[in-house]
Amino acid sequence: MKTLTKELWVDIPKRRQIVSIHRDVEQLVAESRVRDGIILVNAMHITASVFINDNESGLHEDYEKRLEKLAPHEPISQYRHNLTGEDNGDAHLKRQIMGREVVVAVSGGKLDFGPWEQIFYGEFDGMRRKRVLVKIIGE
Amino acid sequence: MKTLTKELWVDIPKRRQIVSIHRDVEQLVAESRVRDGIILVNAMHITASVFINDNESGLHEDYEKRLEKLAPHEPISQYRHNLTGEDNGDAHLKRQIMGREVVVAVSGGKLDFGPWEQIFYGEFDGMRRKRVLVKIIGE
Amino acid sequence: MKTLTKELWVDIPKRRQIVSIHRDVEQLVAESRVRDGIILVNAMHITASVFINDNESGLHEDYEKRLEKLAPHEPISQYRHNLTGEDNGDAHLKRQIMGREVVVAVSGGKLDFGPWEQIFYGEFDGMRRKRVLVKIIGE
Repeated sequence: MKTLTKELWVDIPKRRQIVSIHRDVEQLVAESRVRDGIILVNAMHITASVFINDNESGLHEDYEKRLEKLAPHEPISQYRHNLTGEDNGDAHLKRQIMGREVVVAVSGGKLDFGPWEQIFYGEFDGMRRKRVLVKIIGE
Repeated sequence: MKTLTKELWVDIPKRRQIVSIHRDVEQLVAESRVRDGIILVNAMHITASVFINDNESGLHEDYEKRLEKLAPHEPISQYRHNLTGEDNGDAHLKRQIMGREVVVAVSGGKLDFGPWEQIFYGEFDGMRRKRVLVKIIGE
Repeated sequence: MKTLTKELWVDIPKRRQIVSIHRDVEQLVAESRVRDGIILVNAMHITASVFINDNESGLHEDYEKRLEKLAPHEPISQYRHNLTGEDNGDAHLKRQIMGREVVVAVSGGKLDFGPWEQIFYGEFDGMRRKRVLVKIIGE
């Protein structure tokens, strides 16, 4: 069994931001020399999501807008979590809706994807560098 | 390490539809001869979900109805994604709520499930054949 | 390849409850002697979730409150599933929003986590003992 474990760093200058990590993950699959196996890609932060969807900026705005309806940032007093001094109660909820991680098949040494699948990191409480964990196992 | 990689095709005549893929996945587990490992089952489309829940048609209607409240199809102009000429902005959101994939334990050569767990493909922008990826790894 | 398969039992005296299973999972990782691999932790019930987030009771109340907005328990007549004699239609929806399972990297014989990541079982139709499945594969 071959394995590879790597952390990716992602710059998140804004509070909420969706950033492609697709090429970085593809490079790690190549580096791992795993031909047949699976890859786990997860946010290491609990206000963030790794997800797979379309590389289309309008859609990313739709995610932002809809998540803000489902779990609004303001008023921050609506979240008990914010009594701890945080203002990111909404971000912990948004992350649950979008998911923490993805697991993807590796076949023939590549991400085994449908035609439009792309991997993104979505952060809902950013304004600093964040980490993504990549683990590949296979042979 | 043994692996098996297969694509399943699913007929989706309607725009939104939930279809059982449970037996197909069970057959692939048997075919793989993996006794102990894990199986990944994922939608290859970004407007669709593979999920595990009850095989009960009333519940599937409840999913349809509630998802339509959380991310309505109409008016299609509410989604920037639809400015690309698509009308499936809602489907990309519904898929994120329901999830892209499931990972299931394989034990004793079978899906290691609780008593009510069943695997479904949920499509939110159908009206054609769609693909599901199955990857089994173990020994 | 090494594997470990175990079921954890969790007491859920209330209808809706979030319970930490973090230490139990850590102990199983140690017991497995897997140094490098992945671990799957999933609810065996279809009204429940295994998820990763903050060990902060205010946040857990926020989850409860927000999920109740997104998929309210009452009136139970709003869910067709409840025509079967159940009153847990909402619980099947809440579970989809929170997710069924988590997959976590195991590195150096430990859960490979960011600083705040903790594993929880969230049940939305409890009042009895429930089961969680843990599967570890690696070497």
